[in-house]
Amino acid sequence: MAKAVIAAAACLNLDNVGIFIKNKFSPNYRLRAISNGGIKALEIPRLWYNLVADLPIKPPPSLHPKTLHPVMPQDLSPLFPDELVRQEASTEKFIQIPDEVLDIYSLWRPTPLIRWQSSWSHKPNTAVPQAWYNAQQGIKNVVTETGAGQWGSALAFACSLFDLNCEVWQVRASYDQKPYRKLMMQTWGAKVHPSPSTLTNAGRSILQMDPSSPGSLGIAISEAVEIAATNADTKYCLGSVLNHVMLHQTVIGEECIKQMEAIGETPDVIIGCTGGGSNFAGLTFPFIREKLNGKISPVIRAVEPAACPSLTKGVYTYDYGDTAGTTPLMKMHTLGHDFIPDPIHAGNIFYTKMLTSSGTISNEKLIVMFYRRSTLPWYVTTISHVYELGFMEALALPQIECFRGAIQFARSEGLIPAPEPSHAIAATIREALHCKETGEEKVILMAMCGHGHFDLPAYEKYLDGNMVDLSFEDEKMRASLASIPKV
Amino acid sequence: MAKAVIAAAACLNLDNVGIFIKNKFSPNYRLRAISNGGIKALEIPRLWYNLVADLPIKPPPSLHPKTLHPVMPQDLSPLFPDELVRQEASTEKFIQIPDEVLDIYSLWRPTPLIRWQSSWSHKPNTAVPQAWYNAQQGIKNVVTETGAGQWGSALAFACSLFDLNCEVWQVRASYDQKPYRKLMMQTWGAKVHPSPSTLTNAGRSILQMDPSSPGSLGIAISEAVEIAATNADTKYCLGSVLNHVMLHQTVIGEECIKQMEAIGETPDVIIGCTGGGSNFAGLTFPFIREKLNGKISPVIRAVEPAACPSLTKGVYTYDYGDTAGTTPLMKMHTLGHDFIPDPIHAGNIFYTKMLTSSGTISNEKLIVMFYRRSTLPWYVTTISHVYELGFMEALALPQIECFRGAIQFARSEGLIPAPEPSHAIAATIREALHCKETGEEKVILMAMCGHGHFDLPAYEKYLDGNMVDLSFEDEKMRASLASIPKV
Repeated sequence: MAKAVIAAAACLNLDNVGIFIKNKFSPNYRLRAISNGGIKALEIPRLWYNLVADLPIKPPPSLHPKTLHPVMPQDLSPLFPDELVRQEASTEKFIQIPDEVLDIYSLWRPTPLIRWQSSWSHKPNTAVPQAWYNAQQGIKNVVTETGAGQWGSALAFACSLFDLNCEVWQVRASYDQKPYRKLMMQTWGAKVHPSPSTLTNAGRSILQMDPSSPGSLGIAISEAVEIAATNADTKYCLGSVLNHVMLHQTVIGEECIKQMEAIGETPDVIIGCTGGGSNFAGLTFPFIREKLNGKISPVIRAVEPAACPSLTKGVYTYDYGDTAGTTPLMKMHTLGHDFIPDPIHAGNIFYTKMLTSSGTISNEKLIVMFYRRSTLPWYVTTISHVYELGFMEALALPQIECFRGAIQFARSEGLIPAPEPSHAIAATIREALHCKETGEEKVILMAMCGHGHFDLPAYEKYLDGNMVDLSFEDEKMRASLASIPKV
Repeated sequence: MAKAVIAAAACLNLDNVGIFIKNKFSPNYRLRAISNGGIKALEIPRLWYNLVADLPIKPPPSLHPKTLHPVMPQDLSPLFPDELVRQEASTEKFIQIPDEVLDIYSLWRPTPLIRWQSSWSHKPNTAVPQAWYNAQQGIKNVVTETGAGQWGSALAFACSLFDLNCEVWQVRASYDQKPYRKLMMQTWGAKVHPSPSTLTNAGRSILQMDPSSPGSLGIAISEAVEIAATNADTKYCLGSVLNHVMLHQTVIGEECIKQMEAIGETPDVIIGCTGGGSNFAGLTFPFIREKLNGKISPVIRAVEPAACPSLTKGVYTYDYGDTAGTTPLMKMHTLGHDFIPDPIHAGNIFYTKMLTSSGTISNEKLIVMFYRRSTLPWYVTTISHVYELGFMEALALPQIECFRGAIQFARSEGLIPAPEPSHAIAATIREALHCKETGEEKVILMAMCGHGHFDLPAYEKYLDGNMVDLSFEDEKMRASLASIPKV
């Protein structure tokens, strides 16, 4: 029987893999409580408290709507199970919470006094220090680009903490069609411009060619960078790719090492999804240090979409970080900086959401642009390097398997994951099922990097049976790789 | 200077009231870390880890896009503050996390291995035991009604854990116009029917009169109750109002008492919002026990919308729990079971969302129905009783003040609250500002019962200056109260 510890936001331990795989419960809340931050002093209460029992005067009874006589327990029996009818009329002070309920409570209880359940994933881990360093240096304004708005939201919040002005160039298609994240940024005090805008040379030149341009992440980057480069009191912030971003994210893995120690476990397998890679790097880099020091030897596994398999099928070479070729060249696993993966994709939250909004061909094309200029077809260079050194492995999974895993996770853990971590979830299920088959015991540590509140249309697609797996065409990659500069 | 501890999901302590009110930071992350569940063994790491320093082979450098030479630090200076440029190229193994960043990390860190950041608020505290008791009794199916879908989502999840079939009658207007919560319920395996449906006598009779009826919570209740009452293997579940629901929610307050003890604090003021009242009861009832036992003597304050001031202006009398008068009569503070509050309202999340969807008059009328048949114009009887006994007080606040508080909270704590807890937040700010003025020290414990991910259009209304405060008309209440049965 497999042991699985799934952490960095969600945790399954020893027996809980049963929950995950079989949807069955055993009274293992103590195990959960112990793993839940090791908060021994803060165990979940085992009794509910019935205030009525302690009241000097009892509350007046409910009355039957027809007879106007007090409602009797038997009146309630058609609607409620007996125990709830009993509890409804109970005068006992405490009522035992069933072990099975405690077990499930332990999914989210005890809740520490400070709880974070906000809308971002790991992005604020780096948005906050980036804003802080800028504020320390006397900078008054920071700028950035955002697609759907996750990174922009994180930075908007971080800036609101330090009284920094934050301006975000958001790809116009998202700005117009998906107002929720824009509203979040505004709630946190940021100024949001649809990109292309008339505020920059880059934006104006695009609008001159195409006044109704829906924008792209590449254009938005150009606009934000232009503003930063031409204003002395303004700096640019970036949510992934660079080493300082990875550095800030290591707070995830460091914390996780402490928490694993607190529950007396060592991970045998560490699994995370890789889009831009900062979430994966944040979790795994500290563990790789421990591995390098010979303290542990976990398998470290990156999981990527089968339709955009940069690590597993890409070439390790120098390439640009954007389509226009204006960023520094970085050595990384790439399918070519202008590679266009098939559009419908579990990892491509832009696409699935967009399609639902309108479903037109022009939007499909638009999304392909989003996708191409998003971070998926290439990797954070450090991750590529670590992969080349053999400290980690990679796996590509098709999207239907990912969503099947996401549904299983949602139904057992209560959290609906974003499409990105569904890759890690599906890979974890594979590993756990394998262990179940062979009888091996393994502790699996998995990064759960974000919820899917704004991605529910992708779930609808899956539940309605309209999701398909896509193929990856080597030919397309070879064509794209041909345009890479020779270094 | 006030001390404020805001808990049950979000926490402000000693100095952090400064964060909340002044948006200024002091290096008080230790205080936060201590209050953050007292997890001493799991302190937030004080150093970021730089994997590059430990690699046997250094990663290849980035190259300048024009010269193809390695990128130099000075190339990055136009875009990033110096410290980030230094970090980008750093070969140091560990980098100190600034105290101020640690302070903000402590808003959501350390994250315990089990984290809950799902879409509901406190509802699963009772949805899980309700499902459990039904399963224990061999019941195979449970039914319920839902408006926007929060309660239905919680029950759907709870049923998925125990292999119970869950059927939810969702008010058709929400079913059609706000698909996200419906998708959540389906993701958790529930069957969702738009109400009125053709599956019940109640639904069919409504449809006969009005084939395009948008439904109401009252109709949905009738449908679910009918199915439960006429099928032996099917029971009905309810998300508020009844005592067993309050009972299950006390897990909040019990946990909170332990956590307050762990940080060595005693609440002077406990504040929560009251809609249906189960969140407020869950937090405060255990504290009322301690108060009754003479151990503590906090002020306990319910906060309600000024446009629907049941506790502060209603009459304590027997009334129905629904518009049609089919539920048991309960003694409670009521404005009259058919009282219709002014429609635009911070507490009325149905309305604000609906208006954004279409903005037509017919929908405004529809929403009024929602609202009326929601739980706001009357209270959980136990709360009314406790209020009559003088163990708690009540306060009604206008919606603009509530949203102003919600924005302040979002910008300092990072969590965008739902409209309901914005009432508690605004009242907490009032209390903290009062303390600041008088120089009193107080520990304020506040219930933070849900996020506003699906309520962002209400924020848009506020940010655009389109929100107005509404008046409460005594005349309307008197007319409504005239229809209450004489008991």
